[in-house]
Amino acid sequence: MSKPTPSIEVDPELVEHYVVELASYGATEGTGVSRTVYSPEWVGATQQYARWCEEAGLTVKHDAAGNVWGVLAGSEGGKSIASGSHIDSQTPGGRYDGALGALAALIALKVLKASYGQPKRTLEAIAFCEEESSRFPNANYWGSRAITGRVCQEDFPGIVDFVGKTIDQAMREVGLDPSRIDDARRNDISHFIELHIEQGPILEQAGLPVAIVDAITGIRHYRASLTGTANHAGAFPMDIRRDPMAGFAEITSGLINTAHRLGRPAVTTVGRAVVQPNFAGIIPEKVEFTIDARHPDASKRRRLYEMHEAMMAEIADRRGLELEWQVMIDHEPTPSAPELVDLLGRVAKEQQVPTLTMASGAGHDSQQMAAIADVAMIFVRSKDGRSHTPAEFSSVPDIVAGIKVLAAALYELAY
Amino acid sequence: MSKPTPSIEVDPELVEHYVVELASYGATEGTGVSRTVYSPEWVGATQQYARWCEEAGLTVKHDAAGNVWGVLAGSEGGKSIASGSHIDSQTPGGRYDGALGALAALIALKVLKASYGQPKRTLEAIAFCEEESSRFPNANYWGSRAITGRVCQEDFPGIVDFVGKTIDQAMREVGLDPSRIDDARRNDISHFIELHIEQGPILEQAGLPVAIVDAITGIRHYRASLTGTANHAGAFPMDIRRDPMAGFAEITSGLINTAHRLGRPAVTTVGRAVVQPNFAGIIPEKVEFTIDARHPDASKRRRLYEMHEAMMAEIADRRGLELEWQVMIDHEPTPSAPELVDLLGRVAKEQQVPTLTMASGAGHDSQQMAAIADVAMIFVRSKDGRSHTPAEFSSVPDIVAGIKVLAAALYELAY
Repeated sequence: MSKPTPSIEVDPELVEHYVVELASYGATEGTGVSRTVYSPEWVGATQQYARWCEEAGLTVKHDAAGNVWGVLAGSEGGKSIASGSHIDSQTPGGRYDGALGALAALIALKVLKASYGQPKRTLEAIAFCEEESSRFPNANYWGSRAITGRVCQEDFPGIVDFVGKTIDQAMREVGLDPSRIDDARRNDISHFIELHIEQGPILEQAGLPVAIVDAITGIRHYRASLTGTANHAGAFPMDIRRDPMAGFAEITSGLINTAHRLGRPAVTTVGRAVVQPNFAGIIPEKVEFTIDARHPDASKRRRLYEMHEAMMAEIADRRGLELEWQVMIDHEPTPSAPELVDLLGRVAKEQQVPTLTMASGAGHDSQQMAAIADVAMIFVRSKDGRSHTPAEFSSVPDIVAGIKVLAAALYELAY
Repeated sequence: MSKPTPSIEVDPELVEHYVVELASYGATEGTGVSRTVYSPEWVGATQQYARWCEEAGLTVKHDAAGNVWGVLAGSEGGKSIASGSHIDSQTPGGRYDGALGALAALIALKVLKASYGQPKRTLEAIAFCEEESSRFPNANYWGSRAITGRVCQEDFPGIVDFVGKTIDQAMREVGLDPSRIDDARRNDISHFIELHIEQGPILEQAGLPVAIVDAITGIRHYRASLTGTANHAGAFPMDIRRDPMAGFAEITSGLINTAHRLGRPAVTTVGRAVVQPNFAGIIPEKVEFTIDARHPDASKRRRLYEMHEAMMAEIADRRGLELEWQVMIDHEPTPSAPELVDLLGRVAKEQQVPTLTMASGAGHDSQQMAAIADVAMIFVRSKDGRSHTPAEFSSVPDIVAGIKVLAAALYELAY
């Protein structure tokens, strides 16, 4: 792998055409897209993706979970080298989150096949069926979990959408047999590279089109509550209140300031708070809230949580409040394979795409794929760092730059 | 008024009987009472109150708003001396808030008539029909506002209960003619003394049964909102967020700490907060919240609000957040008539009831009555400072002590 990768050419008009066309499946007002797994819009998008795969000369496979694969068989056999992302969206999301990675893999394989013919190693493009949990709140990473054998038949009855339909029913309605979901498992993929929009402002602030992702951050969600004593807002002196709102405010400031002071890439967010009884004239009885705290370094992540927990306990104790918390989600960081990070860095230079290296603060299918393959990710600059909104946007030149890096890396691995 | 008032005897068994019996109208689980204005429970309670007035030898009058008056006519004419409180409750509230003051007035007049016969000045006991706004959110002080001419016919269509019934309909259903509500106006009351439970812990902490109230606090309710930018909780670095939750936490701590540091009787409460979109993984877009800030001294109250407003503006500006606020309620403090405070202090000593003097942190019908009469209040110790809950409790000996002070003051004014 020491001779330079040939320069990859990606057609910007094709990129724009694919992005806009795919976004027509589930299009909402303006640039919005609402495309949840197993919906009619989703069926349309997967069929369109399959047609484009066929046009590119790839062999199309729909697996038992509803993931769509476009396969470019290699001459030498062995494990596959795969790329892709999810085809479902938020409700509404935009045109880029997920969809862009599925299209990037397809375009990369189309370009490679057209320019260099059959690879030695098999290349596969994938549109994962589900990642956002925007229809079934507890089905997130459904497609990549099916591939990595992390979906349990026993869980199916509890996976219900917002109108009460089970994922089982939803699968049958699109012609899938839920009892056969294990057939989607793969153990023959050696490398997985996912292109995705950044969803944050770091590339924009740095003035760069593309990032190489060296880790997906570790995340913990806490659900916490502070309980005090509800009393009359006028008749109870400040000095003897057990006011959970006062404790919540002090804790929230403390959590946010701690992560801020630690510096990038530590983040802590209090995104949800529910107050009881929530009346202007009554000192609250209880404040329930969430804490989302992330760090891509395993030991710094543990330290962040220790600081958060110690501070919450101290404040609640000093204020005479009852503090309870539960850990709802707890994922270790997923480091990228160092060899893939190095490869992506090298080919980006060769393709003259300026990059930086960063951790992903969001979760991605690559986390799941890391269970069966070496993984890495490529980020494309997001306008204003927005995502999960119709306003998300990445420019065609930035997308082209990202696909060139992806295609060059796939070339190095497969040809 | 320099010779001592005779010792007043109040029958504790009668007090207990009246409290328990009145609480049977609208009784909920345990000691709870749910009795909203113009409900069947309210009709039952007002009829019971009227029967007791008749038994005490008082002349009963139901006015055009639904207030019940028990009149003990004086021999010399002139303006009346009145006492009482409201007969409606929270949903559920307890047995004492409001009801106790209506009963105390009735018992005081019953005792005075039995012991001393006809007074020189007319004495009146009143059960106000409504104070809590627990059925019609914007009808608070309905009874005392009708008496003081502060109810507008034009407002009636907008006064609607939680199932959509207008106060107009509700009045007709209990036999009242809403078009005649102005007939409830009174301009012939010279003094009004209201006995009420404290609703706070100050008497309990001081180990005293009764307080004399020298002012009803001034109050302001703000409705405020902080708007920032919603973003991904993982992908957006701390240092460039516009997080309204961070601003809300800092502001809430600041408001609470400011009132705490000013010391009693300043109070500031953030009782309500609503977060948008309120998801664990999204930096909020907006936090709406209320501020309830009270002080019984007019100039210190203004200063409190200036400090609060300046601090909110500074924090929002520094954090790049949009701050909006509206003043929803704004009532100046209501000082008690100094002569009545002095009189209550003197007769309490004579009746050997130990007291302290304090401001009321809650609003009361006396605020309204101050528009037409000299007012003062008597507080009875509240267990644990509780109110607006079935757990509110005042002991019979404390209540008896409060009624003795009330009756002695009425004796001094009327006999």
